[in-house]
Amino acid sequence: MIVVLDLEGVLSPEIWISVAERTDIEALRLTTRDIADYDELMQLRLKILDEHGIKLSDIQNVIEGMPLLPGARKFLDELRTMYQVVILSDTFSQFAKPIMKNLGYPTLFCHNLEVENDRIVGYKLRQKNQKRCAVEAFKSLNFKVFAAGDSYNDIEMLKAADEACLFCAPDTVKKEFPQFRAVEKYSALMIYLKSVMN
Amino acid sequence: MIVVLDLEGVLSPEIWISVAERTDIEALRLTTRDIADYDELMQLRLKILDEHGIKLSDIQNVIEGMPLLPGARKFLDELRTMYQVVILSDTFSQFAKPIMKNLGYPTLFCHNLEVENDRIVGYKLRQKNQKRCAVEAFKSLNFKVFAAGDSYNDIEMLKAADEACLFCAPDTVKKEFPQFRAVEKYSALMIYLKSVMN
Repeated sequence: MIVVLDLEGVLSPEIWISVAERTDIEALRLTTRDIADYDELMQLRLKILDEHGIKLSDIQNVIEGMPLLPGARKFLDELRTMYQVVILSDTFSQFAKPIMKNLGYPTLFCHNLEVENDRIVGYKLRQKNQKRCAVEAFKSLNFKVFAAGDSYNDIEMLKAADEACLFCAPDTVKKEFPQFRAVEKYSALMIYLKSVMN
Repeated sequence: MIVVLDLEGVLSPEIWISVAERTDIEALRLTTRDIADYDELMQLRLKILDEHGIKLSDIQNVIEGMPLLPGARKFLDELRTMYQVVILSDTFSQFAKPIMKNLGYPTLFCHNLEVENDRIVGYKLRQKNQKRCAVEAFKSLNFKVFAAGDSYNDIEMLKAADEACLFCAPDTVKKEFPQFRAVEKYSALMIYLKSVMN
C-alpha cells in the first residue's frame, strides 16, 4: 500500500504565497485561479523575480524559514511507520528541498527549475499529469494507492487512486467534486485512510 | 533522478542468516544458492519455523536487534539530501519494518508475509521481477534511475537502470557480470553515483 500526498496546502503552506508575503511583491500571489495557463503564470513569475533581482537562494531562504502546517511532521512520521509514502507535488525540487528536510526526507516526485548562477532562467516539467502517471505506475506495480490533495491539480491523482480524499480543500473544489470525502484534520485523514486501506 | 538500492547486503545484513545465527538453526542459512527454487526454499523456511515454534514476533525481535551495516545510515541520510531514494527488496514488509525504522523510514517496495495470530502461514510476492518493474515504472515517469545491489536477484534491476553498479557483491557475481562496475565502500558508491548522475 502506498499513500500519495500533495505537498503545498497538505503538509506545507503554499510556497509562492509565502514568497509573496516575505518579499512584499503582491503579483507573486497570482495562482492558476488568476492566470489559467500555467506556463504563462510561470513566465510571469520568473520575469517578476528578475525585475526584483530575486535569486533562487533568496527564495530558498524564505522557504527554509517557512514552518510546516501545524501537526504535519507528526502526522507524516506516524504515517510512514505504517505505509509507504510518496509526496507528489507540482513544485520544483530546488524549492522543495528545505521542506523535505523539515519533513525528514520522504520520497518526493516533482519538477525541476533551470538555474544559472543562482538565477532561475526557466523550469522543466518532468512529465505532464505527473501525479496521475505516478499513481498509475504504482498501481501497475500491484500497490493499492491512497491519495490526498487539496486542489484542482490533485483531482486526476485522486481519480486514479484506489481510495482518495480531499484534505483542507477550498469550498469550490469540495462543491465541484462531491464524490470525494473531504476531511479537514490530520486525525480525520488518518482515521479515514486506515478505514479504507485495511 | 531516483536511486534504487537493494536492502540486505547493501544497507543491512542478510535477515535469514541473522535469524539462523540467533536461533542456532543451521538450516535457516540456506539461500537460493543452495535451493534454486525460491518457493521451495520459502516453504522449507516456514516449515522449519513452525517446527521450532518460531513466530513472526520472534523474528522481528531478532531483526530489531540486528545492527545496520557500518556507515549505512550516514550514507543513506546523505544520499537522501541529494536524490530521491527507493529501497527495492525481495524481503517482506513485516521483516523490513524494524530495519526501516533504523534507516529513518526511506520508501520501501517489497513483498508481504501472510500472518495468522503471529504465525507466518505463507507469503505473497507483490509482483514477479518487482525490482525490474519498479525501475521501468520510474523510467516511464521520466526519472533517470541509478541502481545498486549485490546479488543475482538485483541483476535485472541493474540492467534496467540508466546507471548501475554492484556493491559488496560476491566474487561469483562480479565475475559473471563484468559489465557492472563493482564498488566495496559507501564512499566509492557515492563518488561513482555522483559522477554518472550529474
